Amino acid sequence: MHVPSDPLATPRFTGPRTFARLPYLPDADDADVMVFGMPWDGSTTFRSGSRMGPEAIRSASALLRPYNPALDVMVFGALSAVDAGDAPTVPGYIEETMPRIEAFVAAILARGAVPVGMGGDHSVTLAELRALHAVHGPVALVQFDAHHDLWDRYFGLPYNHGTVIRRAIEEGLVDPARSFTGGQRGSLYGPEDERIAADLGMLLVPWRELRHWEPARLAATIAERAGDAPVFLSFDIDFLEPGLAPGTGTPEAGGPRGDEALDCVRALRGLNLVGADVVEVAPQYDGPGQATAVMAANVLYEVLSLLALNRR
Amino acid sequence: MHVPSDPLATPRFTGPRTFARLPYLPDADDADVMVFGMPWDGSTTFRSGSRMGPEAIRSASALLRPYNPALDVMVFGALSAVDAGDAPTVPGYIEETMPRIEAFVAAILARGAVPVGMGGDHSVTLAELRALHAVHGPVALVQFDAHHDLWDRYFGLPYNHGTVIRRAIEEGLVDPARSFTGGQRGSLYGPEDERIAADLGMLLVPWRELRHWEPARLAATIAERAGDAPVFLSFDIDFLEPGLAPGTGTPEAGGPRGDEALDCVRALRGLNLVGADVVEVAPQYDGPGQATAVMAANVLYEVLSLLALNRR
Amino acid sequence: MHVPSDPLATPRFTGPRTFARLPYLPDADDADVMVFGMPWDGSTTFRSGSRMGPEAIRSASALLRPYNPALDVMVFGALSAVDAGDAPTVPGYIEETMPRIEAFVAAILARGAVPVGMGGDHSVTLAELRALHAVHGPVALVQFDAHHDLWDRYFGLPYNHGTVIRRAIEEGLVDPARSFTGGQRGSLYGPEDERIAADLGMLLVPWRELRHWEPARLAATIAERAGDAPVFLSFDIDFLEPGLAPGTGTPEAGGPRGDEALDCVRALRGLNLVGADVVEVAPQYDGPGQATAVMAANVLYEVLSLLALNRR
Amino acid sequence: MHVPSDPLATPRFTGPRTFARLPYLPDADDADVMVFGMPWDGSTTFRSGSRMGPEAIRSASALLRPYNPALDVMVFGALSAVDAGDAPTVPGYIEETMPRIEAFVAAILARGAVPVGMGGDHSVTLAELRALHAVHGPVALVQFDAHHDLWDRYFGLPYNHGTVIRRAIEEGLVDPARSFTGGQRGSLYGPEDERIAADLGMLLVPWRELRHWEPARLAATIAERAGDAPVFLSFDIDFLEPGLAPGTGTPEAGGPRGDEALDCVRALRGLNLVGADVVEVAPQYDGPGQATAVMAANVLYEVLSLLALNRR
Amino acid sequence: MHVPSDPLATPRFTGPRTFARLPYLPDADDADVMVFGMPWDGSTTFRSGSRMGPEAIRSASALLRPYNPALDVMVFGALSAVDAGDAPTVPGYIEETMPRIEAFVAAILARGAVPVGMGGDHSVTLAELRALHAVHGPVALVQFDAHHDLWDRYFGLPYNHGTVIRRAIEEGLVDPARSFTGGQRGSLYGPEDERIAADLGMLLVPWRELRHWEPARLAATIAERAGDAPVFLSFDIDFLEPGLAPGTGTPEAGGPRGDEALDCVRALRGLNLVGADVVEVAPQYDGPGQATAVMAANVLYEVLSLLALNRR
Amino acid sequence: MHVPSDPLATPRFTGPRTFARLPYLPDADDADVMVFGMPWDGSTTFRSGSRMGPEAIRSASALLRPYNPALDVMVFGALSAVDAGDAPTVPGYIEETMPRIEAFVAAILARGAVPVGMGGDHSVTLAELRALHAVHGPVALVQFDAHHDLWDRYFGLPYNHGTVIRRAIEEGLVDPARSFTGGQRGSLYGPEDERIAADLGMLLVPWRELRHWEPARLAATIAERAGDAPVFLSFDIDFLEPGLAPGTGTPEAGGPRGDEALDCVRALRGLNLVGADVVEVAPQYDGPGQATAVMAANVLYEVLSLLALNRR
Repeated sequence: MHVPSDPLATPRFTGPRTFARLPYLPDADDADVMVFGMPWDGSTTFRSGSRMGPEAIRSASALLRPYNPALDVMVFGALSAVDAGDAPTVPGYIEETMPRIEAFVAAILARGAVPVGMGGDHSVTLAELRALHAVHGPVALVQFDAHHDLWDRYFGLPYNHGTVIRRAIEEGLVDPARSFTGGQRGSLYGPEDERIAADLGMLLVPWRELRHWEPARLAATIAERAGDAPVFLSFDIDFLEPGLAPGTGTPEAGGPRGDEALDCVRALRGLNLVGADVVEVAPQYDGPGQATAVMAANVLYEVLSLLALNRR
Repeated sequence: MHVPSDPLATPRFTGPRTFARLPYLPDADDADVMVFGMPWDGSTTFRSGSRMGPEAIRSASALLRPYNPALDVMVFGALSAVDAGDAPTVPGYIEETMPRIEAFVAAILARGAVPVGMGGDHSVTLAELRALHAVHGPVALVQFDAHHDLWDRYFGLPYNHGTVIRRAIEEGLVDPARSFTGGQRGSLYGPEDERIAADLGMLLVPWRELRHWEPARLAATIAERAGDAPVFLSFDIDFLEPGLAPGTGTPEAGGPRGDEALDCVRALRGLNLVGADVVEVAPQYDGPGQATAVMAANVLYEVLSLLALNRR
Repeated sequence: MHVPSDPLATPRFTGPRTFARLPYLPDADDADVMVFGMPWDGSTTFRSGSRMGPEAIRSASALLRPYNPALDVMVFGALSAVDAGDAPTVPGYIEETMPRIEAFVAAILARGAVPVGMGGDHSVTLAELRALHAVHGPVALVQFDAHHDLWDRYFGLPYNHGTVIRRAIEEGLVDPARSFTGGQRGSLYGPEDERIAADLGMLLVPWRELRHWEPARLAATIAERAGDAPVFLSFDIDFLEPGLAPGTGTPEAGGPRGDEALDCVRALRGLNLVGADVVEVAPQYDGPGQATAVMAANVLYEVLSLLALNRR
Repeated sequence: MHVPSDPLATPRFTGPRTFARLPYLPDADDADVMVFGMPWDGSTTFRSGSRMGPEAIRSASALLRPYNPALDVMVFGALSAVDAGDAPTVPGYIEETMPRIEAFVAAILARGAVPVGMGGDHSVTLAELRALHAVHGPVALVQFDAHHDLWDRYFGLPYNHGTVIRRAIEEGLVDPARSFTGGQRGSLYGPEDERIAADLGMLLVPWRELRHWEPARLAATIAERAGDAPVFLSFDIDFLEPGLAPGTGTPEAGGPRGDEALDCVRALRGLNLVGADVVEVAPQYDGPGQATAVMAANVLYEVLSLLALNRR
Repeated sequence: MHVPSDPLATPRFTGPRTFARLPYLPDADDADVMVFGMPWDGSTTFRSGSRMGPEAIRSASALLRPYNPALDVMVFGALSAVDAGDAPTVPGYIEETMPRIEAFVAAILARGAVPVGMGGDHSVTLAELRALHAVHGPVALVQFDAHHDLWDRYFGLPYNHGTVIRRAIEEGLVDPARSFTGGQRGSLYGPEDERIAADLGMLLVPWRELRHWEPARLAATIAERAGDAPVFLSFDIDFLEPGLAPGTGTPEAGGPRGDEALDCVRALRGLNLVGADVVEVAPQYDGPGQATAVMAANVLYEVLSLLALNRR
Repeated sequence: MHVPSDPLATPRFTGPRTFARLPYLPDADDADVMVFGMPWDGSTTFRSGSRMGPEAIRSASALLRPYNPALDVMVFGALSAVDAGDAPTVPGYIEETMPRIEAFVAAILARGAVPVGMGGDHSVTLAELRALHAVHGPVALVQFDAHHDLWDRYFGLPYNHGTVIRRAIEEGLVDPARSFTGGQRGSLYGPEDERIAADLGMLLVPWRELRHWEPARLAATIAERAGDAPVFLSFDIDFLEPGLAPGTGTPEAGGPRGDEALDCVRALRGLNLVGADVVEVAPQYDGPGQATAVMAANVLYEVLSLLALNRR
């Protein structure tokens, strides 16, 4: 049972920063969950910097404690969790990077652990989904994001943080009929943009609607679509209002506050969660208080809580 | 038809920053809208810095795309829009600066375009209103702002970012009976401060009330007052909660979040909008993620969307 | 009658920064309220820096004006208020520091003024409560905070910003049966953590519940418990959403926005308020706009407003 | 004898920030030196923000101790010094502001104290020199600055931070034949710019030469020119290399390091120093470590040291 | 003759930021020099962010004036110069990006202008050198840099900011026998690293030696090697001491100060300069004063000055 | 042989940050050197924050490579080195903290490794010296620091970052006759301050003298004093010019540049170095480029290089 080092014995600010002060054990064979980083920011279309996202999230996660009162579940202690370090990446070469991340995630899966990833720009999700597909087949994707990431090409090329979900659907990694994406807002290229999700068979609920939904409605909607399929949660930190999570590459004004965002993650309670990531944390654009990284660490904590609930 | 350069061909982070990647064409005679800056921060009573507001808003506006799903309208492509550059200003001399801004706006109006301004501290609005008055007569002012800016004198002198709306009413540039101001909060000089607006004939709805209004009520209230008068929107970025828009000079705790603020702009749908500005963006006080400038760029985008709707 | 210097005569950004531009009069015998700092950050368990909290709050408080429209009360002018400077502290020695702060507060009380403190990490509240106890006996504590601060020991030692309220109850300084704490969220050490408050006889309402309460319910609940007891308000700035108040040591994702937080303070209207503090402002982690300090200054202003109402 | 509060008794970070923890006594009649601020940044031609310079310098000056080993002189204790607060200014109105600063300095002179000012943009020096002239007649100016500030007009208007020294010479406030300016570098409007100083009768030594001078040569050159005339030192913080003092409005690459800059101030040893200022500190552009303000505080400390030496 | 807009008529902080306030004319056929950006940061091995380098340098360059006193040459007015905008890049795809930059530079050369580039990470230099080679044949490279950038592979792949000069030599774009690189310092992979330059026929002078050279020796050494060959200057901003130019990706402690760095550029006086770049400016890591960008702008200004001298 | 992970295989920005990407092995019995943190900032007299120093130094140290060309020595590969994590500390309790750090260092010594520490404020050096004394007896201290840290009491109490060296001498941990301290500058409490070192038998060379010394003179002076005694190097990062290393608590204007500072460390070549630390890195006050931490990491690298030379 791998657990965080005790912050009542030695302060939280001691030691090399691992996720939630968990042991750094990239080769652990007895972990339920392996948290890992994907430090790649090459394919972001505006501000780069999310290669440092894993470092920032690890730093902010030192505040996490074992018990989650919102979901009434012991997380650490119930779940054996480790920090598996970061997937290798190749700066400047997205097509070389993707297989390396995929192999890294495949190794986690081969160890029997659930992979929980820290981006990196959103393009990394494709590599995760490829690895998951080999084990679980197509997943039900639940995405919270200010963008749908369903565009086709940027600059004439296929792989990019804005095309990642379309690629995943095209490759058969995601079952759109069981999937959900929510939180979109801000300007688009044209009215057809709002129809892409539906054309591909996926349910998209923009923030202007989602903000009026009760948490129960969201949970029911997702559950109905996902059923008992294996579920992957991809949480783009730009889902949040930019002022609350400024440390990201493509901020869109007018999103949720923190408690609303955490409610969205908790809406996955009871689903068959087989993996998750939080992406697009670019700490260079965060303030010195690193509120964006704090939020990302808490989203991951809710993910671990859901996994702990499922084990109960 | 002037439109932004294509961000799917060349990334958003390329090229000199103009508003929304529009062409910089100060002399265009075929634009529906000319976006321009008023880099003046001399008359702010607390933190200076908004002279760099136009630069910051231009930088953040690179993320804007042509279609606004919230209002279901194509903006760029429907509207010919350019960046007209900045009005000349004279550091240290407000009374020399005002006529230069007025002349700059008058030139835009003479070209048949709607002037959409980026401040600068709020005193610049007086110059805009003077230029508009010459063409449109008194306007119905719609103001969203943490302050009413109806004070009389600071330090014994008349022109200042806290006296600008009173001056505009006194000069007959604004018809108070058709005007609306909302969002005020924070401390005042005395109970009489809350009555100035009414005494001048203007409707003021402080944030402690406005936050309970539905968007439809706001829209109806404004529409009823403004009628078919020419409308000028002045949006002071300090309308927002300081934590969400810290890059401003006189922050007041306890204001709206981003989606609420954007709803307020959208409440002007259908009105005869003849000009608008966003003022008081002081990027030195923004965090590195420039959330304040992102919000300001989006407010301006909603303004352009309203203009595009009106042309339809 | 001590009042702030006039910002319509000389700008707000002039002069050494005292709270609200009040006179710095540590020895005033004719003040109703003395605002003072407690620059101690030795016992914080994560990020230090709140020793600079008083400096930052003073700087941000320059914007405060005499009249509070939310509570319809003249504050300055009605209330004689001064800045009493900072209590002495001894870096590195908490047990030497506490009596010095206590003596400083005792001197304020001896002058007949209400002490209103600026932290400093939350451990300073113990010193204030000791001084108040000597005059008022046990107080009804009203606490807004992301943490309950009811833990027992850290690193085997008793005094710490996470144990302060327990210590105060143990020492008989706080009457838990008359006290209220709200706003808690984030991870805990175990399910028993949520029961500590009740076990000690104090009412704890976590943010996941409190966010659904109307202000009137909160006011009634606090009033019912406190009755006519002397009340001390301790407001930990980490009560707020981290993105809105990032300048603090132990941020917890998912808290209130600014107007909600100010409403909580206003819920104490009519109570017998004998002292208050705002703690845990660490300006190094605030952004350049110092939104955290702005919020803290406004919380203190609401406290002064409550005191002014009580004098009426 | 006014001296700083004792930092071995109460830490340096306690209390409202005055210069060097000196008492804030704007009306002291028994001070040898009065340190004061001139928070005006209206007439800077690039980045504003120096209105907050006095606040930042006060904050950084808390580290100053009584004895200066470089000049082997007790400063505090030997010299009675106070913080006189800030001169009133009128945002946006340079021509209203100058007389107010002049009157403020005149009042200091009337109290028999040496005025030592903290800017503010460089235009404030004109007001100081006007007040000094009334008492001392024309002064020998010693200026360290990346610019000569001898230009004639900006935007067609006379008063500005780049024209201030020319105006002072024209008004007869400065005797150019006894004056010295050094440190200039960076681009100019034309080759004639380098001859303005000589044309006006002033000695200008650009940094490309000055950096090869020994301190003794500098001291001898200045002393020879100034003779026994009353000397005013104007130290523009942009004299330093921008990387060392980034918190300023018009940085010019390639200047001195800190010890070289302090040596320049010490070169005035033995002269009849009747006033001094440090200008152009814009803390918004400083890093969080406020190295620019630290340097400015130390320059002022050297000024006070020179005054203390003169009294010996 | 294209020149900057007049900052004595309209302040420097007005208008969209182009390099030195030059006109943005990507298609100018009558420019002597075209300054352009290469916003690519995909292949940096540590901190990303230099895709925003051109924006930051443009912003800082607003302070540049027409005359360079250090080299006694009119720059603007003598030289027709424009801002050509930015080369297109493809985030994530270095091998797609390089030809696009190469084509962009080739177009500048086809217009008869000297290309002066703003990076971007150092890998962009390869694209520039390819375009130059087509016109000029192999160039004499003069490089100032904390690293030699002569490594072979990173992560098994050839193109990267640390391999760029080796690739250029291998491709015959650079004549090592005529080339010079200086300023190297910091840790290496092994002692053989220091011999790579010599093995390839290039002269490398590490900073520990170069800092003892007089400017004349440097000029003579470079001139002797370069002779009348076409010269390309590549200036990596990490050449400077990290504290002076922190806004870069791979800082190495212990480098030159600003005036020393500018002297190095001036050492190219009289050479047949056919192109130049300044690379690795990552403004996210710069302080708010943007000292790194200020330095980069000044390096480019010295380049333009050299070109102006050559035209005389 | 413990060495850093290979940055040519996996980028430097991957994985939890340990010093120089070394393995985190707190219990290694086969290391020549153990690098460790002492995250304590309770006893600093001005700005706190150095508890985060070890985290910042680890982050910046990712750039370190195995070979040091300045000293011509392989470091990693020649020396088996690990990151031992951080010593436990007790926030707020210096007298509880010191024995815990001492025990931590004693354990490293017991494993046969040389302890190389990362502060933390300077008070931590006392704990290190106590542990070293138990093994080596009194050491020859070599200190580079803007302050001598030889004061007696602050606030009436003995342990503090300004009294640490005096305490160490009093406890017999340091042999002053063999010790050297250099770099002092800035203001003092009185002329007697400059004599304390001599009175205690230690050689103090202030920066105003040291800056004129050649490296060879410094090396000879230190060597002559230290002889073959065990040597401990304590490097306070405030030794450097504040603009170059702003991330520290008590900056003093006018210190060395980076290459000069590194030369000072190299002056210990050949001595019997038994331990070292770098202290007072407070990253909250560093800029985003973290130049202070970069410098600290390089100072530690020079220390490791000296140890590697000694093993040869």
